[in-house]
Amino acid sequence: MRWRSLSIKFIVTSGGRRLTLVVSSVLLDGSPLPLSLPLCSGSGIMAMWRAAAGKLLGRALASRAAHTSAGSKKIVGVFYKAGEYADMNPNFVGCVEGALGIRGWLESKGHSYIVTDDKEGLNSELEKHIEDMHVLITTPFHPAYVTAERIKKAKNLELLLTAGIGSDHIDLPAAAAAGLTVAEVTGSNTVSVAEDELMRILILLRNFLPGYQQVVQGEWNVAGIAHRAYDLEGKTVGTVGAGRIGRLLLQRLKPFNCNLLYHDRLRINPELEREIGAKFEEDLDAMLPKCDIIVINTPLTEKTRGMFNKEKIAKMKKGVIIVNNARGAIMDTQAVADACSSGHVAGYGGDVWFPQPAPKDHPWRYMPNHAMTPHISGTTIDAQLRYAAGVKDMLDRYFKGEDFPEQNYIVKEGQLASQYQ
Amino acid sequence: MRWRSLSIKFIVTSGGRRLTLVVSSVLLDGSPLPLSLPLCSGSGIMAMWRAAAGKLLGRALASRAAHTSAGSKKIVGVFYKAGEYADMNPNFVGCVEGALGIRGWLESKGHSYIVTDDKEGLNSELEKHIEDMHVLITTPFHPAYVTAERIKKAKNLELLLTAGIGSDHIDLPAAAAAGLTVAEVTGSNTVSVAEDELMRILILLRNFLPGYQQVVQGEWNVAGIAHRAYDLEGKTVGTVGAGRIGRLLLQRLKPFNCNLLYHDRLRINPELEREIGAKFEEDLDAMLPKCDIIVINTPLTEKTRGMFNKEKIAKMKKGVIIVNNARGAIMDTQAVADACSSGHVAGYGGDVWFPQPAPKDHPWRYMPNHAMTPHISGTTIDAQLRYAAGVKDMLDRYFKGEDFPEQNYIVKEGQLASQYQ
Repeated sequence: MRWRSLSIKFIVTSGGRRLTLVVSSVLLDGSPLPLSLPLCSGSGIMAMWRAAAGKLLGRALASRAAHTSAGSKKIVGVFYKAGEYADMNPNFVGCVEGALGIRGWLESKGHSYIVTDDKEGLNSELEKHIEDMHVLITTPFHPAYVTAERIKKAKNLELLLTAGIGSDHIDLPAAAAAGLTVAEVTGSNTVSVAEDELMRILILLRNFLPGYQQVVQGEWNVAGIAHRAYDLEGKTVGTVGAGRIGRLLLQRLKPFNCNLLYHDRLRINPELEREIGAKFEEDLDAMLPKCDIIVINTPLTEKTRGMFNKEKIAKMKKGVIIVNNARGAIMDTQAVADACSSGHVAGYGGDVWFPQPAPKDHPWRYMPNHAMTPHISGTTIDAQLRYAAGVKDMLDRYFKGEDFPEQNYIVKEGQLASQYQ
Repeated sequence: MRWRSLSIKFIVTSGGRRLTLVVSSVLLDGSPLPLSLPLCSGSGIMAMWRAAAGKLLGRALASRAAHTSAGSKKIVGVFYKAGEYADMNPNFVGCVEGALGIRGWLESKGHSYIVTDDKEGLNSELEKHIEDMHVLITTPFHPAYVTAERIKKAKNLELLLTAGIGSDHIDLPAAAAAGLTVAEVTGSNTVSVAEDELMRILILLRNFLPGYQQVVQGEWNVAGIAHRAYDLEGKTVGTVGAGRIGRLLLQRLKPFNCNLLYHDRLRINPELEREIGAKFEEDLDAMLPKCDIIVINTPLTEKTRGMFNKEKIAKMKKGVIIVNNARGAIMDTQAVADACSSGHVAGYGGDVWFPQPAPKDHPWRYMPNHAMTPHISGTTIDAQLRYAAGVKDMLDRYFKGEDFPEQNYIVKEGQLASQYQ
């Protein structure tokens, strides 16, 4: 029995307050040899272990990539189908038919590339390829839900790539435990999403949609629109989360002469804060009642899931407008619908739902004063070209055994990125 | 027969290239004594006459105002009706029911105040009061069309006030010839309109409306939206007209990282131009083919009426987006509808039509890829409060015989404001 040094696997699992570091190496016959070490969370030992583990994993990944680049890979892409729209725009690469524009490149390198939109259930096209695929590419717009069960079944899986931003459709602890790498194209559509947020703020605040509906229905009733239409100027806008998208939104809001607030775990550096002109609110519950408009810009994690429930919404000002392009599951679905019906929330807009596609009976389709669409803000043609290029770049690095741009990793070296912990 | 010095009327009419200055004085028996002087356009004599006329008129107006403040006035307001929406918002002052919030104040001063939305035809409520009203207040959102015929009939009329901005519903040469004063509340809703323009740019460019329609119809088809959705970042935006609203739009566009162009008669001062970051385009026809997005921000005058016809639209880039919150009659209605149908124009949005209310069969209601609403952008609740205060201020000055803020005058001292000449 001889160890095959290039195929070392390094696995970190997290369970409760204890972490167990497992260093295993795939033997020639494929069976793992586990080495288990108990590790106390929060201790200095943990930090030491992490550092040591990082170095080891760095070598392990490089080794694996060098190994994997030698052979042909099975890559599966799950995207939304374009159908009749596929040929309408040569830059429409984000759909099944466009396949990120990388089919020729992948096949010329000897890899196989399966693309589908059929992602749900045991009889789906995706399910057929789970067992032997090496790479899965999917998007937040038409997410392939990568559960712990699917990860267990995916014995060859090495890499999960998100064409876009937001990898919450993946069971990240399970992916980490299985030693997979999860990465997204950070920054590829932050501008797209921030622009869309500002659009939805204006649509709701200015009461645009009833006016549009009047036009197409042959009507004309200015009062029916104007009695609840407001300027953005002078209003208080608060963002829950001021990461990449939140900051881009604040920058775009600046010339509108609003009162800008932000809540986040950390304060933006003072210079940027001054430039943006937004005030830090350490206590979310203290910020909520001050806002005329609240924008959700936080990732979906176990901490933020269902965060905006009935109690949280009750803390907001009566007549508040909420825009959420982050993730649907951050909200309590029924609490949002109820608050729109009662009028406590004067408008709710966004492009994210749970699950996606939203079922026909999803209450947000039918609640009053909404500005909802399918999940589109991050999949403009401009964004598609950027995230397609980002996916190609990461695949190229994967084949060559090179690291990805650091900010793209969601799971790297056995550890979740900090915002997912 | 004795002249009544406080009731001097000073009338300037313009006809072709000749101006005739008529100085008349109402006699005690009411008949005018005209004094007519030929005046060559463009000559130095004209400038001299204008200066002299201005001084004379200044005295005449002051005298008239002093005279008129003594008696009670009949003031007519034409606004849109709110009906069921009237009581939904205490700040909803811009409707018939709200009556600008000045009824109590006017009546306490002994004036009569008639308010209606019934403005068309010889049997309308407005028509009943034309003969003896002193002041007419109307809005661009539900305009009372003040024709030369109506002006002729309105023997007591002294003042035409626009609650808002844009007085093209008034036959301005006829109003000037009749010695009337026409004024609006300049600046009262420029921010409101600029915000709305940016909203419509985003709605069209990002293809929001088909997504919204999918949601309410129980559908989900990301491709149907995404295949023609774009970011604003990096696009070329040109404004035709860079007055108050055009500049506010450019300032709000700045953080979107667009290529900003503007066409106007005059260049913005270099410092402001640098601050806004927009490039001056002297030749409109040279600017049009450069733009991904064109925004109309020019007043409706005889020069701009029907300006964007088939030929002008053909000069624009295929796939251009047009936003027009200025006036509907600046466009050739059918040319716009045809260009949207052919796809040469990828989207057309705005809130202005001709006539208003738009008839049920107006082609803009039914053309593809539009983002039209009734005329609402300048009548947000915030704007209503501002223009109601502005109207009250001008009425107060009128009663006291004081001048209005200079920028409010459309017709003053027998001369049209420069942009209407």
